[in-house]
Amino acid sequence: MKPTVAFIGLGAMGYRMAAHLPQHFDTVMVWNRNFAKAQQHAAQYATLAVELQQAAQADLIFSCLPTSADIDTILAQVQCQAGSIWIDCTSGVPEAAQRQAALLKQQGVSFLDAPVSGQTIGAEKASLTFMVGGEADAFERAVPAMQAMGHLIRHVGQSGSGFAVKAVNNMMMAVHLCAAAEGFTTLKAHGVNLQQALDCINASSGKSGVTESALPDRILNRSFPLTFALGLLAKDTGIAIDLVHEAKLSAPVTAVTQSLIQAAYATSEANSDFSAAVKMYESWSKITIE
Amino acid sequence: MKPTVAFIGLGAMGYRMAAHLPQHFDTVMVWNRNFAKAQQHAAQYATLAVELQQAAQADLIFSCLPTSADIDTILAQVQCQAGSIWIDCTSGVPEAAQRQAALLKQQGVSFLDAPVSGQTIGAEKASLTFMVGGEADAFERAVPAMQAMGHLIRHVGQSGSGFAVKAVNNMMMAVHLCAAAEGFTTLKAHGVNLQQALDCINASSGKSGVTESALPDRILNRSFPLTFALGLLAKDTGIAIDLVHEAKLSAPVTAVTQSLIQAAYATSEANSDFSAAVKMYESWSKITIE
Amino acid sequence: MKPTVAFIGLGAMGYRMAAHLPQHFDTVMVWNRNFAKAQQHAAQYATLAVELQQAAQADLIFSCLPTSADIDTILAQVQCQAGSIWIDCTSGVPEAAQRQAALLKQQGVSFLDAPVSGQTIGAEKASLTFMVGGEADAFERAVPAMQAMGHLIRHVGQSGSGFAVKAVNNMMMAVHLCAAAEGFTTLKAHGVNLQQALDCINASSGKSGVTESALPDRILNRSFPLTFALGLLAKDTGIAIDLVHEAKLSAPVTAVTQSLIQAAYATSEANSDFSAAVKMYESWSKITIE
Amino acid sequence: MKPTVAFIGLGAMGYRMAAHLPQHFDTVMVWNRNFAKAQQHAAQYATLAVELQQAAQADLIFSCLPTSADIDTILAQVQCQAGSIWIDCTSGVPEAAQRQAALLKQQGVSFLDAPVSGQTIGAEKASLTFMVGGEADAFERAVPAMQAMGHLIRHVGQSGSGFAVKAVNNMMMAVHLCAAAEGFTTLKAHGVNLQQALDCINASSGKSGVTESALPDRILNRSFPLTFALGLLAKDTGIAIDLVHEAKLSAPVTAVTQSLIQAAYATSEANSDFSAAVKMYESWSKITIE
Repeated sequence: MKPTVAFIGLGAMGYRMAAHLPQHFDTVMVWNRNFAKAQQHAAQYATLAVELQQAAQADLIFSCLPTSADIDTILAQVQCQAGSIWIDCTSGVPEAAQRQAALLKQQGVSFLDAPVSGQTIGAEKASLTFMVGGEADAFERAVPAMQAMGHLIRHVGQSGSGFAVKAVNNMMMAVHLCAAAEGFTTLKAHGVNLQQALDCINASSGKSGVTESALPDRILNRSFPLTFALGLLAKDTGIAIDLVHEAKLSAPVTAVTQSLIQAAYATSEANSDFSAAVKMYESWSKITIE
Repeated sequence: MKPTVAFIGLGAMGYRMAAHLPQHFDTVMVWNRNFAKAQQHAAQYATLAVELQQAAQADLIFSCLPTSADIDTILAQVQCQAGSIWIDCTSGVPEAAQRQAALLKQQGVSFLDAPVSGQTIGAEKASLTFMVGGEADAFERAVPAMQAMGHLIRHVGQSGSGFAVKAVNNMMMAVHLCAAAEGFTTLKAHGVNLQQALDCINASSGKSGVTESALPDRILNRSFPLTFALGLLAKDTGIAIDLVHEAKLSAPVTAVTQSLIQAAYATSEANSDFSAAVKMYESWSKITIE
Repeated sequence: MKPTVAFIGLGAMGYRMAAHLPQHFDTVMVWNRNFAKAQQHAAQYATLAVELQQAAQADLIFSCLPTSADIDTILAQVQCQAGSIWIDCTSGVPEAAQRQAALLKQQGVSFLDAPVSGQTIGAEKASLTFMVGGEADAFERAVPAMQAMGHLIRHVGQSGSGFAVKAVNNMMMAVHLCAAAEGFTTLKAHGVNLQQALDCINASSGKSGVTESALPDRILNRSFPLTFALGLLAKDTGIAIDLVHEAKLSAPVTAVTQSLIQAAYATSEANSDFSAAVKMYESWSKITIE
Repeated sequence: MKPTVAFIGLGAMGYRMAAHLPQHFDTVMVWNRNFAKAQQHAAQYATLAVELQQAAQADLIFSCLPTSADIDTILAQVQCQAGSIWIDCTSGVPEAAQRQAALLKQQGVSFLDAPVSGQTIGAEKASLTFMVGGEADAFERAVPAMQAMGHLIRHVGQSGSGFAVKAVNNMMMAVHLCAAAEGFTTLKAHGVNLQQALDCINASSGKSGVTESALPDRILNRSFPLTFALGLLAKDTGIAIDLVHEAKLSAPVTAVTQSLIQAAYATSEANSDFSAAVKMYESWSKITIE
C-alpha cells in the first residue's frame, strides 16, 4: 500500500511542488497557515486540505516555510507517527536541522533537511534539485517522493548538510552577483558594449549562473522581477557566514560580499528582487548596467 | 586575390591558432623569437617561417605574446604596409592598445586588440572566442581570418575594449575561484560530501565556470595541470583593478580578490596553474579540497 | 565594616590585580585552579588561599579567566550570598554575560561584566581601564574595589556592554595592526626609511595605538614578546564580528580583518604574540618590517 | 646674506604657512593664482606679492597646491635659478615628484617633495610635520626654512618618499575612520553608551588619531567641519593604493577601505569633510553615531 503524504506550507514554491504529488500518491494532504490557500489547492489539484495535526500523521511530511524558526513553531504544535519521515524544503539553518532531527527522533521520526533549488519554474516543471542532509536510510525511503517534484536528488551528508549546501550555493551566487556588478560597471565606464561583452564572457572562463541568467534576464533588461527576495538572500548569506565562523575559517571574499549584500538590502526598496543588489553599485558609480 | 596573413608569436596558443590559417589563405607567414619553433611550424603546417620584418608586410598580421610590453618591443622593430590590419591576441593592457593603435595609425595601419578565450583546446579546435576592440570597419575586414580560428567573434568597442573584456572576464573568474575555495572549505569543515554538493551547485544558481570546470577537473582531482599560469592570472587581475581605479569606481569584492590572488601567487610554487590559488586557502584552513 | 573580597583566577593579569586588594580590604581571598599559585599569592601578598566555594561567599567576587566558558564552569560549582556582586574581568562574550547575570540574579547576586585593558604593566601599576556592563547600582557599589586596581572606571551600559566594548576595542586594534602592516610594507617596497616615516605618522592623523606602541616596541625591533596571544586576538575579533552579525550590520573592513587575523593565527607559530600577525604580510611580500 | 624665499599657492594651508617666513627671512615673495589673495597676504604680513616668474627666482621656493598636476602646470611656466631649491608641500603623487625632480635638475635646481601634516591649526602655530623626500644635501639646506613653519622635520628617503609617507598616513587614517564607524555603529546597535566607550577605547589599545580627534570633535558632535575634504581623502587613498599595486603587494584592508572611501565620496553631499564618510555607514545601519 502506498504511503500517505502531506505538504505543509503552500507558498510560491510549496504550492507548485505539492501539485505533482497526487500523480504518484493516493493520499496527499495539504496545510497552509492561510487555510483558504490549502482549500484552493485541494480544489485545483485534488489534494486534501486538512488540519495541521492531521497532516502531521502522514507517512511522509514535506514542509516549505520561510525560515527554520517557522518550522520550530510548527513542530511545537504537532505529534507525528513513529516511522514517518519529515522532509523540510525550507532554506534553513544547519544547526536548526540538527536540533529538529533530535526532537523528532524522540517521536521515532526521521528528519531530512532537503532544501531545493530551481525557483518557481523548477517547482512547476518538477525539475528541482534536492540537496539532502540526514540519515541515509531515511533519504533512500524519501527519494521516490522527492522524484515526484525534482530531477536531481542528492544525499550530501548528515543532518544540516542540505541546508549548508543551499546556504553556500546562495552565498556563491551572491559573490558572483557582486563580481558581475563590479565587472560590468567597470566595462561600461570604459565604453564597452555590455551585450557583446556578456556574449564573450558567457563563452569564456568568467561565466556564472549570474552572467547566464540574472544579468541578461533581470538586470540588463531592468526588469528585476521579484522571484527571490533580496532579504532572503541577505538571510542566506548570513547563514553561510555563520558556517564560516563556526568552523573558524578565513573567507575574506565571502565576508565582504555578505557585508555588501546586507548593505544593499538595508538601502533597497521594499520587495526588491535579489538582483536589485546591483543598484547599490549603480548609486556609487552613477552608472546603470543596461 | 586573397590577403596574405602572418602570425607572430608561436606559444602554446599561437602555435595552434596559426595551424588553421593555411586552410583559408594561400600565404601564411609565421615568426617566433625562438626561430626553430617557426621552422617546425612551417614543416608541420606548410606555413612560411620568415623574418619579423617580412611578417610585418602581410595584409593581416596576428600577434600573440605574453604581455603588451612584448608587443611594444615588436612594433618598435617593424614598418607595416599602409592598409594592413594588426590583430593582437595577447591578453594585454587597454591603454597600451590605444597607444599601439595610434602608433600604427601613423603608418596607415589599423590595430585591433583581439584577445581570445578557450585555452589551448579551443585553439586546437578553432573554437576560440575573440573579444575585439578597435574600429568597426577594420573589425569587419578581419572577421574572416578570426573565423578560421574562432567560433564566437565579437566587436565589443573601441581600442582597448577587447583587452578590457578579457581582463574583466579573468577577474570575474578569479572571484569565482575564491568563492569556490571559500565555499568548499566551509562545506568540508562541516562534513559535507563535496562531490555531491558540487553536483547540486552545478544544477543551481551558485554555479560558475569554475564550479563546472576548474573545480572538478583541476582541484578536486588534485591535478592542477599548468595550462594557465597563476602569475598570468595575477597580471590580469592587476589590469582589471587598474581599470576600476582609472574610472574611480568602487569594487570591494574585486579589490579583495586581486589582493588574495597576488598573495596566492607570491606564496605559490614555481609554475603553478591558476587553480593552485586554492592552496593558500588550504594552508589557512588545514582542509584539502578533495 | 569593610566588605570581604575574593579574586578567582590568578593568571598573568589576575595575579597582579589581586595583589593590590589587601591595601584596601581586610579580607582578601584568592583561588586558582592550580592551587599552588593561590598559596604563593597568599604568601607573597598576605591574601587568603581558599576553596572555590569559600571564595564565592565574599561580598565582592572578582574573576579573570581565559573565556566566558570557563566562567560558566565556575558558576556551575558555586552558590553565592544574596546581595553580593560578581565582577568578571574576563574578555568574554556579551551574550554569556546576559546569561550569567540572569543565573546569578536567581541567587540575588549582581553580575558585572568588567573587562580591563592596560596589559600586565597596567595590572602591576593599578592603572587598568575597566569597561563595565550591568546594573548601575551594582556598578556604583563595585567602583571602590575596581579603583584599587584601575585608573579609568566606566559604566558603558547594561549586561554585556563591557564585553562588547572590549571586543570592539580589540577588533579596532586588529584593523589598525593590518593597516600598519600594509602601510609599512608598502613604504619599504618604495625605499622609504621606516623609522623616519613612523616618527612622521605618529605626529600625524594616521597614528594609532599600534603605530605608537606595537610597531616600535614589538615589530620594528623584531622582538614580538608574547604578552597578548594572537589566538586570543583571533577569539576577540570573532566576538566582535558576531556582534556585527547579530545586529545585521555591514562592516566590510572589520570582516576582512577578522578573516586575515584568523588566517594569520592559523599559519602562525605556537605561542605567537598578536603582533606576529604581520608575519603573514611579510610572507606575502617577502618584505620584513624592520 | 640670507636666502630669498618665495611661497607659491596661498590656500588654507599656504596662506598661514607663508605668514611665518618674514620673521626669519628678509625677502619673502608670495604668489597666488587669484592674485588679490597674494596682495592681501603682502599687506597683512609684509611679504612681497610678485609675478610667478619672479617668485621662481628665489633661492628657496615653496609650493602648496591641490594636486601634482597643478605643480606640473606651474613648472611649465617658469625658469628657476641654478642652485635654488623647490620645496613642494602639496600632497602629491610619488612618481610625479620623481618626474618633477628630473625636470628641475636640468635647470640645476633641487626638488624636495615635502608634504605637511597638522592641518590649518598646525600651519597657524608653525607646528607642522614635514615628511621630506629628495637629496639629503638639499634637505639639509632647506631645513631652516621648514623649521620656520614646522616642528617635526624628517628626511624619509629619495624623491617621492615624502609624498608616499603622506599618502600612506592618510590611507591609514581612512582605515581607522572605517574601523571607528564600524565599531561604533556596532556598539550603539547593542545599546552601549558611546561617550563612555570612547573614553575607554582612548585609554586602551584600540585608540587612533581618529578616536582621539575626528570621532569626538567632528562625528559624535555632528559638526563635520570642512577642513579636509572627503574628495581629497579619496584622492590620497587612490595614491596609496597605486603604491600598493606598483609594488605588486597584497593589502586587502587598504583595498577595501579605498573602495569604501570612494563610494562614500561618490554618494556624499558637496563639500563634505572627510569625517562625513561615516554617513555611508549610517545610511546602511540606520544608526547615527552620536
